[in-house]
Amino acid sequence: MSTPTSIIPDAEAAHPEFYEALAAQHVKALWTIPGTLAPEPTLDEVPYVWHARDLWPLLEKAAEFISPDDAERRAFNASNPKRVFGTSHNLVAGYQMVLPGETAPAHRHTPSAIRLMLRGGGITTVEGEPVWMERGDLVLTPPVSWHDHRHPGDEPMIWLDGLDVPFVRGQHAQFAEEYPNEQLQDLTRPQDASVAEYGVGLVPAHSTWTRKHSPLNKYAYSTTRPALLRLWEVEGSPTSGSTLEYVNPLTGGPVIPTISSYLSYIPEGGASKPERHTPSKIFCVLEGGGHSIINGERFDWEENDFFVVPSWHWYQHIADQGDAVLYSLSDWPIYEPFDLVRREVRDEYPQL
Amino acid sequence: MSTPTSIIPDAEAAHPEFYEALAAQHVKALWTIPGTLAPEPTLDEVPYVWHARDLWPLLEKAAEFISPDDAERRAFNASNPKRVFGTSHNLVAGYQMVLPGETAPAHRHTPSAIRLMLRGGGITTVEGEPVWMERGDLVLTPPVSWHDHRHPGDEPMIWLDGLDVPFVRGQHAQFAEEYPNEQLQDLTRPQDASVAEYGVGLVPAHSTWTRKHSPLNKYAYSTTRPALLRLWEVEGSPTSGSTLEYVNPLTGGPVIPTISSYLSYIPEGGASKPERHTPSKIFCVLEGGGHSIINGERFDWEENDFFVVPSWHWYQHIADQGDAVLYSLSDWPIYEPFDLVRREVRDEYPQL
Amino acid sequence: MSTPTSIIPDAEAAHPEFYEALAAQHVKALWTIPGTLAPEPTLDEVPYVWHARDLWPLLEKAAEFISPDDAERRAFNASNPKRVFGTSHNLVAGYQMVLPGETAPAHRHTPSAIRLMLRGGGITTVEGEPVWMERGDLVLTPPVSWHDHRHPGDEPMIWLDGLDVPFVRGQHAQFAEEYPNEQLQDLTRPQDASVAEYGVGLVPAHSTWTRKHSPLNKYAYSTTRPALLRLWEVEGSPTSGSTLEYVNPLTGGPVIPTISSYLSYIPEGGASKPERHTPSKIFCVLEGGGHSIINGERFDWEENDFFVVPSWHWYQHIADQGDAVLYSLSDWPIYEPFDLVRREVRDEYPQL
Amino acid sequence: MSTPTSIIPDAEAAHPEFYEALAAQHVKALWTIPGTLAPEPTLDEVPYVWHARDLWPLLEKAAEFISPDDAERRAFNASNPKRVFGTSHNLVAGYQMVLPGETAPAHRHTPSAIRLMLRGGGITTVEGEPVWMERGDLVLTPPVSWHDHRHPGDEPMIWLDGLDVPFVRGQHAQFAEEYPNEQLQDLTRPQDASVAEYGVGLVPAHSTWTRKHSPLNKYAYSTTRPALLRLWEVEGSPTSGSTLEYVNPLTGGPVIPTISSYLSYIPEGGASKPERHTPSKIFCVLEGGGHSIINGERFDWEENDFFVVPSWHWYQHIADQGDAVLYSLSDWPIYEPFDLVRREVRDEYPQL
Repeated sequence: MSTPTSIIPDAEAAHPEFYEALAAQHVKALWTIPGTLAPEPTLDEVPYVWHARDLWPLLEKAAEFISPDDAERRAFNASNPKRVFGTSHNLVAGYQMVLPGETAPAHRHTPSAIRLMLRGGGITTVEGEPVWMERGDLVLTPPVSWHDHRHPGDEPMIWLDGLDVPFVRGQHAQFAEEYPNEQLQDLTRPQDASVAEYGVGLVPAHSTWTRKHSPLNKYAYSTTRPALLRLWEVEGSPTSGSTLEYVNPLTGGPVIPTISSYLSYIPEGGASKPERHTPSKIFCVLEGGGHSIINGERFDWEENDFFVVPSWHWYQHIADQGDAVLYSLSDWPIYEPFDLVRREVRDEYPQL
Repeated sequence: MSTPTSIIPDAEAAHPEFYEALAAQHVKALWTIPGTLAPEPTLDEVPYVWHARDLWPLLEKAAEFISPDDAERRAFNASNPKRVFGTSHNLVAGYQMVLPGETAPAHRHTPSAIRLMLRGGGITTVEGEPVWMERGDLVLTPPVSWHDHRHPGDEPMIWLDGLDVPFVRGQHAQFAEEYPNEQLQDLTRPQDASVAEYGVGLVPAHSTWTRKHSPLNKYAYSTTRPALLRLWEVEGSPTSGSTLEYVNPLTGGPVIPTISSYLSYIPEGGASKPERHTPSKIFCVLEGGGHSIINGERFDWEENDFFVVPSWHWYQHIADQGDAVLYSLSDWPIYEPFDLVRREVRDEYPQL
Repeated sequence: MSTPTSIIPDAEAAHPEFYEALAAQHVKALWTIPGTLAPEPTLDEVPYVWHARDLWPLLEKAAEFISPDDAERRAFNASNPKRVFGTSHNLVAGYQMVLPGETAPAHRHTPSAIRLMLRGGGITTVEGEPVWMERGDLVLTPPVSWHDHRHPGDEPMIWLDGLDVPFVRGQHAQFAEEYPNEQLQDLTRPQDASVAEYGVGLVPAHSTWTRKHSPLNKYAYSTTRPALLRLWEVEGSPTSGSTLEYVNPLTGGPVIPTISSYLSYIPEGGASKPERHTPSKIFCVLEGGGHSIINGERFDWEENDFFVVPSWHWYQHIADQGDAVLYSLSDWPIYEPFDLVRREVRDEYPQL
Repeated sequence: MSTPTSIIPDAEAAHPEFYEALAAQHVKALWTIPGTLAPEPTLDEVPYVWHARDLWPLLEKAAEFISPDDAERRAFNASNPKRVFGTSHNLVAGYQMVLPGETAPAHRHTPSAIRLMLRGGGITTVEGEPVWMERGDLVLTPPVSWHDHRHPGDEPMIWLDGLDVPFVRGQHAQFAEEYPNEQLQDLTRPQDASVAEYGVGLVPAHSTWTRKHSPLNKYAYSTTRPALLRLWEVEGSPTSGSTLEYVNPLTGGPVIPTISSYLSYIPEGGASKPERHTPSKIFCVLEGGGHSIINGERFDWEENDFFVVPSWHWYQHIADQGDAVLYSLSDWPIYEPFDLVRREVRDEYPQL
């Protein structure tokens, strides 16, 4: 099948001086540019799993010679093997570690972050509200919101960071600033105040919230996990499980304007339905072990691992070892305003 | 001060034949119509309290000679003392009683209803989903949704109905129909399925809900009461308490397109701040006893009573006997699309 | 067919003391209230035509003894023959006349108005912008916007007023005030400035408009009439004509939050398709003559007449004398937020 | 000032084996990645002018050996001198030429295009509607809409193409397809039908349009140019002129979900106010000649030239030769859903 824009082979060979003149003008002939209007997306990113068993020891190693005083954040960024920067074209994920007694100073920036707590417990302060985080909790540090991290406990804490830096930076829209005068911001609200306000599906009367992100800074695993299991009991498939989306209680939309978040349950021996979609997704394993088939290739994962499913790749998750609970984040909200979401779900894995 | 449209006194006396000619044409001269453009709302509805101690015995009396088989619903409608129909101009409230073993057959209609459970326990089925109700639970029967009531228990159940019949009927937009062929609708969903889906501030991924009302059919008191107290602890005023709004988890807006709902806490000895607003409100006492000052007049209330605060009346609630928990419903959403909400809050009760 | 709520005949006769006790409590038993949940809207308003040939002479008569100095506005209100006030339950229409040299002082109010110019030319000032009006022009005086009228010409001017006073007053949300200190407001903008800004389907870059009504104060007949004919030529039915809606250029929605406006063309000998809908409509004849069949009854009209089609009445317009151009206004936007619009269109007039 | 994320110089030199281990895991330490959270956008694209005097002769040359039969489109793409593809990171612009008698076959794709006609006249067919284009007309070929080009005239036609291919392709969301079976699509609608429907700020009653882009396929210069001058007369600055935005008449939003369009007037001797913003803009000169100062550097332009102002570059246009009319397109709508628009306007050009 011809593509909507035809490339003319060897066009340049026939009239070299013409194409040199174009190049001198910073112009290209449409018939010489491959893929300008290709019929399907080019799959130039690859699926990949990052294993906690490999990376957490390296974090501990880093703790020997890097402190937040030096680096602000002791954080790793997972780069898609086909990219210089970014786990996918819009998102970057990675582990971050804070040791007991350490603090990471306050700053704010146009990129947004989610934090999925994996080990230990500690505090992220968001716009004056200290938020207690423990395993499985999702904590938001929304766009242009002051945030810092504190560790009052006695065990190293590790979480998964997920940010939209590749998107925001690619849009030349990244702005960032240090908190004035001091390392940590002032605490101006009670601990977990936003959970008291917005945490159960009710909202304070006459709320004056006008930002686009969720006013709720934490979605506690003690709430989300039972909700997921209850949904599965009531409506889930015995084999393919259930998925909940974390939402902004004031809009029903994504928690962050650019990042949506999900929690999926797959019972042991079950498998999610094969699907593909234009947005990319990054999964992190909260419970269980298993593997995913991504565009026909097998990727094994266990607790605390995370992996990327790039745009338009078929994928299916299989829960091999215990019931699986998978958290995921996605750049889905970047596609929706422009009608760029395409999604296919099948009962059987397609022949590729 | 002159009003924006001046009435000319005795205009008709000077030219009687002219005004008779107008009347014959079904026309009135603007300068003879009082209040067409009055500077402030006319307060032609009055505050009033309906007491459970008076009305519940009458419900029991009614049970002696009226069954749902005769009447479909054994329900009372509270009429504002200044109105033929309607507790306020948009809303009607009242008690409904179902006895053990009784059923109230399925129907649906463009008017919407909320049910606030006050006594006993039983089931309202909404669009195929049986919803278990017990004291303090808020259950929705949204517009054009099949609903019926069943009573598997052994104690009479009584709830507060709140409907928008005056508004919908006043708009000549009331349509209603009986469920085909049978008394009770088919049960097509598990019990409390919508609570599993939407009950904790998360939503099923890829939800395809498109109706304007909340997809959540029940807001359980076991969830809402602790949330209210937690909000008060974290952010509430020691004296004036706190108020949560029940919201549609997909929009952050009202649970029903025409009816919003709230839950307020006032600690014993405290009082809400004096306020007035153009929408009307109906309050129902879930806990405690006290009184309200409405446009300068005192109204006492105790558990299970309900009372109306008409449009643009100043009101303040005082918790005299124990901590008070007040549920309320309002026609607020009818005002918002048209920028007709006006609201004033004061620290001190105004001189009237 | 039984209705969703059954009335029990003679219920009161069997237990008079019970129903007296209820009445003393300002309560009614649901089974004694006719129509609470009637299956279809009650048609308690009637269609009616107001004729310019009858009313314009009465306006001239009124000019002999009523001036805007006395009455602020020399305006008639058309009352539905079945209502004390209001042409329909939400809208009131009527003629207004201003003589050369007269002025009508500035005021503003929560009710909104449209003005359809019928005779002569003059100026309505809206929020500091003088707007020139001539035959067929639609001029808005939106909610809470200062407006006054001036007449620099030499011929009496007459227009059709259309307001939402019945709705706003029924909601107890009417507020109105006089312009401070002086009769006419200051002119702070060039004449027809909003037409320059928004009048051709483009908008000023970085517009900061936040009100819900249209920023465009005038829709000139010199623009709307050719647009209507062009639409008909390109897409219209040879017999049933075409209809355009006036819209807010920033939303595509109605020009006023509570009032939508339309312009319809029916070629001579043609007829609009029979339809009915829950919203009400008021039509005014800009060109041609004809008649309408409204719920089976014939109503004749000619230029400058206006007539009301109440809620849920079948209607069809027939253009008997020349091509007809009908302007109409409706309370349609009051129904939309609450999913209360029902509309049926047929090819043949239904048997009633 | 330190940046919100500190880079540790020579970190890798101190522990080379550690960083090698990270690299082997496709992970980078945050403290080694420059610019991850830089305080301001990196300006890695450059301003540039493409001159018609240079490129139109090359188009004519191309016509000697490339036909639409070979290449589908005889089009040039302007590449930012600092990019491999794309005039800016989201947009690509360029000239396209069609000769008398030629046709460019129908296709559709997720990327969108605008066409600004510069020379000659011809037809673009959009979803079955033939749209006549002549100088200054803006014609849309919206996402996933069939479009082809036909040339019934006798003079070569040239227009400016503007597309969002870099954005859509970067999101891996590009899908494209050929029209089935034939070269040109069927004509199913009258010529310029959408202009009849939506072209004057009114819309067909009961419009059922649900797509996100404008239903209006053409904004004719015969309408937009007088509107621009009229706006300037009424509200414009004597020196800095006026700017209108082309809008979707159903939303007041951009004509295409990803691309906004503007028309600016600067009187001879005047200059636009200096401004910068995160979105990029591409300008095309419809009338007059002049120059722009972009981040301190001078760029001269004359009729039919186009030039790019990249993200966050200060720019000011000066009309040297006659009154200037500048069309522009922007990726502004890509920034708005995510609150990524930042814009500054000054009276004086800033010191850089």
